[in-house]
Amino acid sequence: MRVDETVAAARAGDRRAVARLLSAVENGAPEAARIARATKGGDATVVGVTGSPGVGKSTLVSGLIGSWRESGLRVAVLAVDPSSPFSGGAILGDRVRMADHALDRSVYIRSVATRGHLGGLAASTGAAVRLLEGLGFDSVIVETVGVGQAEVEIAALADTTLLLLAPGMGDAIQAVKAGVVEIADVYVVNKADRPGADAAVRDMKAMMSLVKREPGEWRQPICKTVAHTGEGLDDLVAAIGKHRDWLAGTDLLAQRRRRRAAAEIRAVVDDELRGRYKVTEALAAEVAAGDLDVAEAARRVLGDTA
Amino acid sequence: MRVDETVAAARAGDRRAVARLLSAVENGAPEAARIARATKGGDATVVGVTGSPGVGKSTLVSGLIGSWRESGLRVAVLAVDPSSPFSGGAILGDRVRMADHALDRSVYIRSVATRGHLGGLAASTGAAVRLLEGLGFDSVIVETVGVGQAEVEIAALADTTLLLLAPGMGDAIQAVKAGVVEIADVYVVNKADRPGADAAVRDMKAMMSLVKREPGEWRQPICKTVAHTGEGLDDLVAAIGKHRDWLAGTDLLAQRRRRRAAAEIRAVVDDELRGRYKVTEALAAEVAAGDLDVAEAARRVLGDTA
Repeated sequence: MRVDETVAAARAGDRRAVARLLSAVENGAPEAARIARATKGGDATVVGVTGSPGVGKSTLVSGLIGSWRESGLRVAVLAVDPSSPFSGGAILGDRVRMADHALDRSVYIRSVATRGHLGGLAASTGAAVRLLEGLGFDSVIVETVGVGQAEVEIAALADTTLLLLAPGMGDAIQAVKAGVVEIADVYVVNKADRPGADAAVRDMKAMMSLVKREPGEWRQPICKTVAHTGEGLDDLVAAIGKHRDWLAGTDLLAQRRRRRAAAEIRAVVDDELRGRYKVTEALAAEVAAGDLDVAEAARRVLGDTA
Repeated sequence: MRVDETVAAARAGDRRAVARLLSAVENGAPEAARIARATKGGDATVVGVTGSPGVGKSTLVSGLIGSWRESGLRVAVLAVDPSSPFSGGAILGDRVRMADHALDRSVYIRSVATRGHLGGLAASTGAAVRLLEGLGFDSVIVETVGVGQAEVEIAALADTTLLLLAPGMGDAIQAVKAGVVEIADVYVVNKADRPGADAAVRDMKAMMSLVKREPGEWRQPICKTVAHTGEGLDDLVAAIGKHRDWLAGTDLLAQRRRRRAAAEIRAVVDDELRGRYKVTEALAAEVAAGDLDVAEAARRVLGDTA
């Protein structure tokens, strides 16, 4: 690949060039380091979108794209599908809903499969986010399916993390249980035209009143949206901008980006170490039979090749 | 701790003794190896219970406990709360619903917090499951909050994994998206008294007809339950037994247990390696600034102490 030419084409809106660069970076191709240097810099807002299945994440993302495009911004979306470790396949049904933007050269949408790999999100997505920022995208959205670990990882990648809730699912409580509430910067009660929306907002407020905050700390706003009509999107976009400004006014933006980089390095290191220190079938069988305890088995794995 | 005495007390139904042994094993106390040897063996059915927040997992688990107790079996529950990496706290609200069994000495219920740690479930829960089995529990239930990675990990721990769905949440589709369908051995449409239950069953059947199966492969049954009234629980218990018998008739039971042990060893090894190969703030800052690519940073981490 001619790195400089491809980067120039990608900056000019050639989506195939963007795709080629992303693939090279994700796969750790020999050009990856050169690409990283050629695309250094940029100033994107990186927005993570999380929430239980069914709350309307894809529709909201489509709405956000529309709002930012109206302001003339370039928008990229990484849709993370934690695919099954068995089939290796990702199910991308609702990417279809993003078809609205299919012909807009200033919008780039890509599905990223994590292959059920622990830490996979950080490994495959961190460098991709930085690349898209370096290519001149103004907003990079990282969206995931699923609750829990994937959302914690997304929050580590993003500058601003949205947590979507829908009325009537007891979602506020469930989000607390899954430990997702604390990682969000902006709460969004989507499907706000449905019964129970006000109750959901009230629940969230009640929950937040329990969280102790230092003076100067960010207070998460609660936005109400109806993603498929666009209602409330302007307020949400404003809230995202406000959070980004707040971050930039502190050291937190830089801190989050260092944390993101650290997670990426960690993922690559762990991958390499897994190859070096293999758990054999024989050891696993001994532990399963109760003839060997786990700590001793681990010592043998580490000792074998240390 | 006097291991033999404590094990004897635990086998006789002393729940404080069970708790002490579990803590020792989970914390990798010096006695852990001795405890593992003293509790070798046993023959429990290990059942994983997964499903989106709100489908009624805790109520169903309480129902299963009741059914098994009627048959005179001893039952243990490990309720895994993937707690926030920030607060470190687990939210155990619905453990309260299990209070029905609080005075029954043949029932042991414990909450396990994973502290948002990747692979944490395998590390903290695998040895606990084996211990409970060795202490003579006939059924060990592992229940989790959350979708995605945690569920994949639970499936790796369990002999039989239940996937709970509720009507009208589009859950069947969502489960496929999260890659959970393939890891389940028994599907449960809970809240079957609600509208949409038959549609949910139909959706699941349609989905399953898409999966290719070899002759002799397990065909996941779909059970309908109303956990809070107990409706359908007998059928579910029968389906779990049938799956267990099928497993025992193949090499798969032993295979699953070896896989569980391998995951446990891996988690301990990874933990140790994380301590040996640290990602420094300085390296993360260089990567965040685009001055260093991730692969090179990883090489430096690995080279420093190799």
